[in-house]
Amino acid sequence: MESEFQSSLLEGAVTELSRLPGIGRKTALRLALYMLRRDEREAVALGQALIDMRRGISYCRVCHNISEAEVCPICSDTRRDTSTVCVVENVKDVLNVERTGRFDGLYHVLGGVISPIDGIGPDSIEINSLVERVADNKISEVILALSPTMEGDTTNYYIYRKLMALGRSDLVITRLARGVAVGNDLEYTDELTLGRSIIDRRPFEN
Amino acid sequence: MESEFQSSLLEGAVTELSRLPGIGRKTALRLALYMLRRDEREAVALGQALIDMRRGISYCRVCHNISEAEVCPICSDTRRDTSTVCVVENVKDVLNVERTGRFDGLYHVLGGVISPIDGIGPDSIEINSLVERVADNKISEVILALSPTMEGDTTNYYIYRKLMALGRSDLVITRLARGVAVGNDLEYTDELTLGRSIIDRRPFEN
Repeated sequence: MESEFQSSLLEGAVTELSRLPGIGRKTALRLALYMLRRDEREAVALGQALIDMRRGISYCRVCHNISEAEVCPICSDTRRDTSTVCVVENVKDVLNVERTGRFDGLYHVLGGVISPIDGIGPDSIEINSLVERVADNKISEVILALSPTMEGDTTNYYIYRKLMALGRSDLVITRLARGVAVGNDLEYTDELTLGRSIIDRRPFEN
Repeated sequence: MESEFQSSLLEGAVTELSRLPGIGRKTALRLALYMLRRDEREAVALGQALIDMRRGISYCRVCHNISEAEVCPICSDTRRDTSTVCVVENVKDVLNVERTGRFDGLYHVLGGVISPIDGIGPDSIEINSLVERVADNKISEVILALSPTMEGDTTNYYIYRKLMALGRSDLVITRLARGVAVGNDLEYTDELTLGRSIIDRRPFEN
């Protein structure tokens, strides 16, 4: 027997699949055997889609979001408000904010948050390019939309200071509102969030 | 925006990934974004491994196990006992039995079990080829190694009758022993299994 799986091709597929996060060798084998049972076109389409995606997608020169072109569709969309930049941690968050349909400005994808424990300092992520971008363009508002975690807050504050140092009196820096999640029972809202929702309370409107 | 994911390449990869069992669109997106963050070679290696596997693996003409050649490595291994055939439901079970290191005969992979509810009759799986194989070869024992479920038992019985109909007095038909799982507490062994382990009790040996 050449390999544990009686086939070096199966072994190869299982090994590559199990490099993916959350996929162990057992799951990888299950997926590979599933593909063997299905039509050949399906497995080839999957394999080719992964190759095409990885080869065809790079990062937008302006906002560092994923893009098939040098500048992403959002940055090159002339209908969007170019004076507002929403700073997010990663590509997924761009998709999340886009899905709300409540934002028509541009993005800046940091590619992470400052986390000394993980060895991620300010220079490891796209903060300098953000500061340059704000300095060089007519940007009137920067929305800091990082997760309300220790690392997110640290990164927010670091960016805030860097942007303030530009000395641009016309620049507004905002952050996402914090409060009770829509549809959530107060009973299950943690006290920090509930406390913040009282401090940040807004006039009642119908 | 052309697609939900701002990139038809990303969309394509997510769509193909989410065809896999147990992988929804959210997980598919997470996997695709992970691949985008990793080195290009990794994604290409994965994609190519899946294509190569599906194109290079077919089924053994003799036992219907997966094989890169017309006859699989087990069937063509001259050191194995060709007089004993172990009947299993699927490819995974071949790997499972091989891993025990307790069997050196050949296999016959049915590709399923009889299950009228799922529209799987005796002719949908490799039963006729098993009967022909036993009729045409010097096979002295057939081990029925299907899962002890309703469908497995039905299939076992169907195969048993078909093989008996060959009228081969030298043919022994066996099934897997049923009993308490090794290392399992009796307290957690179901009563059917425990009852079977009493009926099938064996002389004590050190």
